[in-house]
Amino acid sequence: HIDGQRLWSSLMDMARIGPSPNGGSRRLALSDEDIAGRRQLLTWTDALKCEWRTDQAGNLFIRRAGRDDSLPPIGIGSHLDTQPLGGRFDGILGLLAGLEIFRTLDEAGITTQRPLELIVWTNEEGSRFAPAMGGSGVYSGRLSLEAFRNARDRSDMSLGEALDHSGFKGSLTRDDLPLGAYLELHIEQGPVLERKALPIGVVSGVQGLRWYDIEFTGDSAHAGPTPMSYRHDPLLAATAFIEAMRETVLADVEGMSRLTVGDFQVAEPSRNVIPGKVLLNVDVRHTDEARLAELDGLLRDHVAAAAEREGITARVEELWHMPVTRFDTTLVDDLSAAARAHGLDPFTMMSGAGHDAVNLSYVTPTAMLFIPCREGISHNEREYAEPEHCAIATQVLCDAVLRAASR
Amino acid sequence: HIDGQRLWSSLMDMARIGPSPNGGSRRLALSDEDIAGRRQLLTWTDALKCEWRTDQAGNLFIRRAGRDDSLPPIGIGSHLDTQPLGGRFDGILGLLAGLEIFRTLDEAGITTQRPLELIVWTNEEGSRFAPAMGGSGVYSGRLSLEAFRNARDRSDMSLGEALDHSGFKGSLTRDDLPLGAYLELHIEQGPVLERKALPIGVVSGVQGLRWYDIEFTGDSAHAGPTPMSYRHDPLLAATAFIEAMRETVLADVEGMSRLTVGDFQVAEPSRNVIPGKVLLNVDVRHTDEARLAELDGLLRDHVAAAAEREGITARVEELWHMPVTRFDTTLVDDLSAAARAHGLDPFTMMSGAGHDAVNLSYVTPTAMLFIPCREGISHNEREYAEPEHCAIATQVLCDAVLRAASR
Ligand SMILES: NC(=O)NCCC(=O)O
Ligand SMILES: NC(=O)NCCC(=O)O
Repeated sequence: HIDGQRLWSSLMDMARIGPSPNGGSRRLALSDEDIAGRRQLLTWTDALKCEWRTDQAGNLFIRRAGRDDSLPPIGIGSHLDTQPLGGRFDGILGLLAGLEIFRTLDEAGITTQRPLELIVWTNEEGSRFAPAMGGSGVYSGRLSLEAFRNARDRSDMSLGEALDHSGFKGSLTRDDLPLGAYLELHIEQGPVLERKALPIGVVSGVQGLRWYDIEFTGDSAHAGPTPMSYRHDPLLAATAFIEAMRETVLADVEGMSRLTVGDFQVAEPSRNVIPGKVLLNVDVRHTDEARLAELDGLLRDHVAAAAEREGITARVEELWHMPVTRFDTTLVDDLSAAARAHGLDPFTMMSGAGHDAVNLSYVTPTAMLFIPCREGISHNEREYAEPEHCAIATQVLCDAVLRAASR
Repeated sequence: HIDGQRLWSSLMDMARIGPSPNGGSRRLALSDEDIAGRRQLLTWTDALKCEWRTDQAGNLFIRRAGRDDSLPPIGIGSHLDTQPLGGRFDGILGLLAGLEIFRTLDEAGITTQRPLELIVWTNEEGSRFAPAMGGSGVYSGRLSLEAFRNARDRSDMSLGEALDHSGFKGSLTRDDLPLGAYLELHIEQGPVLERKALPIGVVSGVQGLRWYDIEFTGDSAHAGPTPMSYRHDPLLAATAFIEAMRETVLADVEGMSRLTVGDFQVAEPSRNVIPGKVLLNVDVRHTDEARLAELDGLLRDHVAAAAEREGITARVEELWHMPVTRFDTTLVDDLSAAARAHGLDPFTMMSGAGHDAVNLSYVTPTAMLFIPCREGISHNEREYAEPEHCAIATQVLCDAVLRAASR
């Protein structure tokens, strides 16, 4: 049985590395704090006599030997990097749960059939270097090493340079580090489990996402002397589009469509000037890929109709499309069975956010486990998860790992 | 008869002072270029043997003596300052038309009964120092000298300091510089005259204006894992408000209601984060003060309904209320009669924008004359007015000035 107290202590110890002003964490990818976090984890796993290796993306693989080391290991992973004003659980929990499993197995004198691999993925957050989920992207072949290394931070340092100085750059690739399966425990980052008062959720997949930049271009003019009927106002086209798209998304009876306008920028704004150009950042998500494609078509229709209403032009650029991910049913069943064995409702859900597990699912059987976080808040110093939820989820994860490692 | 050629040459000469990159003007209030513009005008009026004085706000009064100098003079005025990338006509035309009238009267050997006063108002644009129409505001008592002098530019210089160094700071007030009437010629800054193919418009008043800052505050959350039904999205409240207010304004069958959202700011925007706060700059105008008051009530209702729809809070702050201005009917009739005498349609219109004449109307009989500007564009280097329109309007203004000065 895992030790919830010890797990919680490790979480709080890790939070002392790169503490943020209001009780959260600040360990930007490949910063000194992020590196110090990795060193702390290695101090703990060195004590367990685990060996470690790194690949070309700086992903850190910490191995617990199995009875048959020729079999591909079971991966347990997540990330240690955080947002600039981030929390103490997002990513960290998945790794320290893996550490707690290693410790528990050591104490119980258990050697699994397959080896286990605790994996720290580089730059999951994408906050210092875009895109997010970069290390797992390179491992899985979904992001080129070149694009990964060329990303630059605000001080114009490239991820490649930062990695070369980190002490964690390796030369291995997935061919040297194959996995037999991958499991990730994470906070939900949303309100569903908390509102349902459930301590865990078994994650069967991740909703798909499409990111857009939408630009409306009209005619700038003086607010006073220009009658409404003479105007070509891109801001009114933008509001018409957003309201229409909102109607479409809310018309989804199952409530699975999601629309977020993260930014609404007016070019050269002035209080008494009709804007000439407006730019929107739009995020659309759905758990069903066909419906996500339909939403894409409807979005383009609404943009065209809004532009026509105002007699202006519009441009839609799709920046990213992450298709719906379906996790491995055997692993989902393993997690559900483990939950049931501990008297828990094996509530199955889709993840709302992308995780390293999305990339992993393209190259090995993958599944995830969620716990609630307070008020659904993450990417925030106030992020919080209950010690009992961390403990019970780690126990369920441990059981599922043991099952997978014996196959 | 005024000399249209000479007027146009003066306009082009003035445009050589503080030229902007693409053929417009850059003479920010009380900048070296603005001062040089005033010096150029004084060089021209010195040649006509006019005396000049300045008041405490740096407004420049250039006097052409009358037969009875004890009578309050007729003022002809506007401004020489421009937007950062401004045009060659906005303000300048009104002053150089006055100069052309002085020159024409000199050539014709005419001395009017009342003296004439060519007036350069300080800081009309409000671009370097807010608010706009400041010099005329102080003269008319609608803006305190203290508030006027305390305005600061981006480099933190106060208008008071700039004025003290300009060489145009005086100590006179309106008591020393009373006016018997005030007339101002200006470009329309809107599309109405051009679309109607009219060379002039007689301005009978200025529509009222109300400026608002509206803030919607909801709950920031991750775009991915937060279902629509759990959200409190201030951006969606803002778009709902704008669409509803647009409906209200367009429902005005006479088409006299105007709505402009000049800025739409998202606090700490991020592509995959539901915004926590949104701020709008809103400009509402109407030619009827009672209807403007109704629009104020409807705006507040729409804000409340939009906030309620999203389950969030909102705050409406009114920053400025410029009531509807009605110009002096005798002067409006003088301008109309002069237009008719030159075979022109005395088309009467309301001004869409505020002008120094609005402030003057509180202290002396006032009216304005408009000419079209190309595509209705102003506050832009592309601003353009036809030489014939400048000339014919100056002739009409001259006739109206002669009539007023003989009363
Ligand atoms: N977990 C997370 O914030 N992933 C980034 C991509 C997304 O917005 O889902
Ligand atoms: N003419 C002008 O731009 N005045 C400023 C006030 C307004 O927006 O009407």
